Amino acid sequence: MDDTGTDDSRPQFLSSQNAEFLINSVDAFLFDCDGVIWKGDTLIDGVPETLEMLRSKGKKLVFVTNNSTKSRKQYAKKFQTFGISVNEEEIFSSSFAAAAYLKSINFPKEKKVYVIGEEGILEELELVGYTCLGGPEDGNKRIQLNSNFFFEHDKDVGAVVVGLDQYINYYKLQYGTLCIRENSGCLFIATNRDAIGHLTSQEWPGAGTMVAAICGSTQKEPIVVGKPSTFMMDFLLERFQIDTPKMCMVGDRLDTDILFGKNAGCKTLLVFSGVTTTSDLQGPTNSIQPDYYTSTVSDLMQSRLTM
Amino acid sequence: MDDTGTDDSRPQFLSSQNAEFLINSVDAFLFDCDGVIWKGDTLIDGVPETLEMLRSKGKKLVFVTNNSTKSRKQYAKKFQTFGISVNEEEIFSSSFAAAAYLKSINFPKEKKVYVIGEEGILEELELVGYTCLGGPEDGNKRIQLNSNFFFEHDKDVGAVVVGLDQYINYYKLQYGTLCIRENSGCLFIATNRDAIGHLTSQEWPGAGTMVAAICGSTQKEPIVVGKPSTFMMDFLLERFQIDTPKMCMVGDRLDTDILFGKNAGCKTLLVFSGVTTTSDLQGPTNSIQPDYYTSTVSDLMQSRLTM
Repeated sequence: MDDTGTDDSRPQFLSSQNAEFLINSVDAFLFDCDGVIWKGDTLIDGVPETLEMLRSKGKKLVFVTNNSTKSRKQYAKKFQTFGISVNEEEIFSSSFAAAAYLKSINFPKEKKVYVIGEEGILEELELVGYTCLGGPEDGNKRIQLNSNFFFEHDKDVGAVVVGLDQYINYYKLQYGTLCIRENSGCLFIATNRDAIGHLTSQEWPGAGTMVAAICGSTQKEPIVVGKPSTFMMDFLLERFQIDTPKMCMVGDRLDTDILFGKNAGCKTLLVFSGVTTTSDLQGPTNSIQPDYYTSTVSDLMQSRLTM
Repeated sequence: MDDTGTDDSRPQFLSSQNAEFLINSVDAFLFDCDGVIWKGDTLIDGVPETLEMLRSKGKKLVFVTNNSTKSRKQYAKKFQTFGISVNEEEIFSSSFAAAAYLKSINFPKEKKVYVIGEEGILEELELVGYTCLGGPEDGNKRIQLNSNFFFEHDKDVGAVVVGLDQYINYYKLQYGTLCIRENSGCLFIATNRDAIGHLTSQEWPGAGTMVAAICGSTQKEPIVVGKPSTFMMDFLLERFQIDTPKMCMVGDRLDTDILFGKNAGCKTLLVFSGVTTTSDLQGPTNSIQPDYYTSTVSDLMQSRLTM
C-alpha cells in the first residue's frame, strides 16, 4: 500500500508526509465553512495561516457552503471580520446555487419565486433579476383560521426555494405548499438537506428540516442545488476549468461534503472540527470514506515540517 | 361475481342493494370526521339522519379522527354544535391515541412530554396524568441567535409528541429535536402523517408536515399512533370486542382511512366528500382499493328504499 495514495478505500490519517503529498497533488482546495473555517461566530484556530500558506503555494481556494442564510456578499463580509480576505467570486453558497440553477434552466423572469428561507436567498435571486415573495417578510404573518377564511397565493409563482429558515411558520408552509400543489409546473428547489447546522456553538435544525416539511405537505421531492448534489460542482468545474482529481474537498460532514467531493471524483479530507466524530467515521453504519481525515484544517500546515 | 360481496378486489359503487347488504353485515361503523362528517366548520348534508338511522338499527358508531388539534371532549362539543349527540367514549382522536399509547407502554409519570401540536394533545396527555411542555405556550417564543446564546432543554423529557401545529416555529423544532437527539431513549411519537387537512374549506399542511420536519432534523422515524397505524385499531378492538370483519371503516382518504380499515380486516367505504376524487381512486398510481365507494355517507340511507 502506498501511504500517500488515494486508491486504498480506507481513509488515511493526515500525517505530515501525506499532507505534503496532498497539497502537491492538487491545484484547488474546496472548503466547507461551518465546522471547517468557523463554528457559528468563532473562527477555528489556525485557519488564516493555513489559507495563507495554500495561497502562497498558488492553490486556488473555493468556499462551498450549504448555509443559505447569507449571500456571497454577506459571506465575504464575514470572512473580513475574521481578518481573512476572500473574494465574492471564491464563495459558492447554496443561496447562490439556487439563483444559478434557475438561471441555468432559463427560468422565466416574468415568473416569481416564493422563498422559505432567509435574506441570502432573496439577495442572490434578486441579483440575477428574479422577483421574490416570502422570506423574512412573511416571518411575522399569522393565520386566523375560520370557516370564512380563504388563503390566496400568487398564481405566477413558478418556483419555491426552500432553505434554512429561523422564522419558519405555518403561513410560509401553506404558501409554499399551495404554490407547489396548485401552480402548474411549479418547481420545488431545496438549497440543501442538512439535518442540522451550527448556527451557534450548538446544533440547530438545518435546511433539511424545512425541506422535509414541504416534502411532507406536498408529497414531492425537491431539486437539491447544494451539496452533495452535483449541480454546484458542475458549475464550479465550468467556472474554474480544473479537473476534479486536481481538487480536494475539505469538509466536516460525510453525507454532504465528503459525498459531494467523492461524487465528483475529487480528493477528500474530513476534519473533526465540526459535526463528525471519529466514531461516526469508523462506525458500522457509515459507508462514506474520505481519502484523508484529521482534526482541523490547520493540520495541513504540518506539510511545512517536512519541506 | 356477487354484487354484494367484498371478496372481489374491484371497489363497488354503493347501490341501494349493497348499501343494505353492508349495513346488515356489520355491527359497527367507524367514521373518519374531516371530509366525512364535516368539512372544516360545515356539516356535510344528511349526516345527522344517517347516524340516527344506523343507531336505530343498533349499530355501534365510532368516530376515528387523525386531527389531533382537539381532545375527545372538544370533539364531543363540536358534534353538539351540529345537533348530533355523540359520547366522548365514541370518539377516538389521534390526540387521545398519543396519550393511550404512552399509557399502554407504561411511560413513566415522572418523565415529561414535549408537544409540537395544539391544545387537544395537551388535554389528553394531562387527563392521563402526564406533565407536558410546549404546545400553544411555545407558539410565541422567538430565538435570538448569537454566539453567546445557549438553548436549554429539559433533560427529563422522555417523549416528543408531534401533531398538526398551526403555531409551528423554530423554537419548537429546536426543542423537539434536542430532546430526541440528546435525551437518552426519548421517544418520537407522531399523532399521524396526513400530508394535508381541511382546516377550512381549503387544504392546509397536515401533521405530516410537522412530523416530516422532525424526521428531517433528527434523521429518525416516528412511532405513528393515528391512522393507518394499527395501534388505534388494536385499542378499539380491545374496547369494543367486535370482530373486524363486522366493522366498516368509512373515510375520505385512501392512504389513511381505507388503508387503516383494510390493514385491520374491516370492510371499507370510501366517500368522495373529502380529499379523494374518482380519478384518484381509479388512477394508475393508486394501489389501495376500498370495498365500496360513494359520494357521501348519506348514501347509506338508500338502503331504506329497498327495505
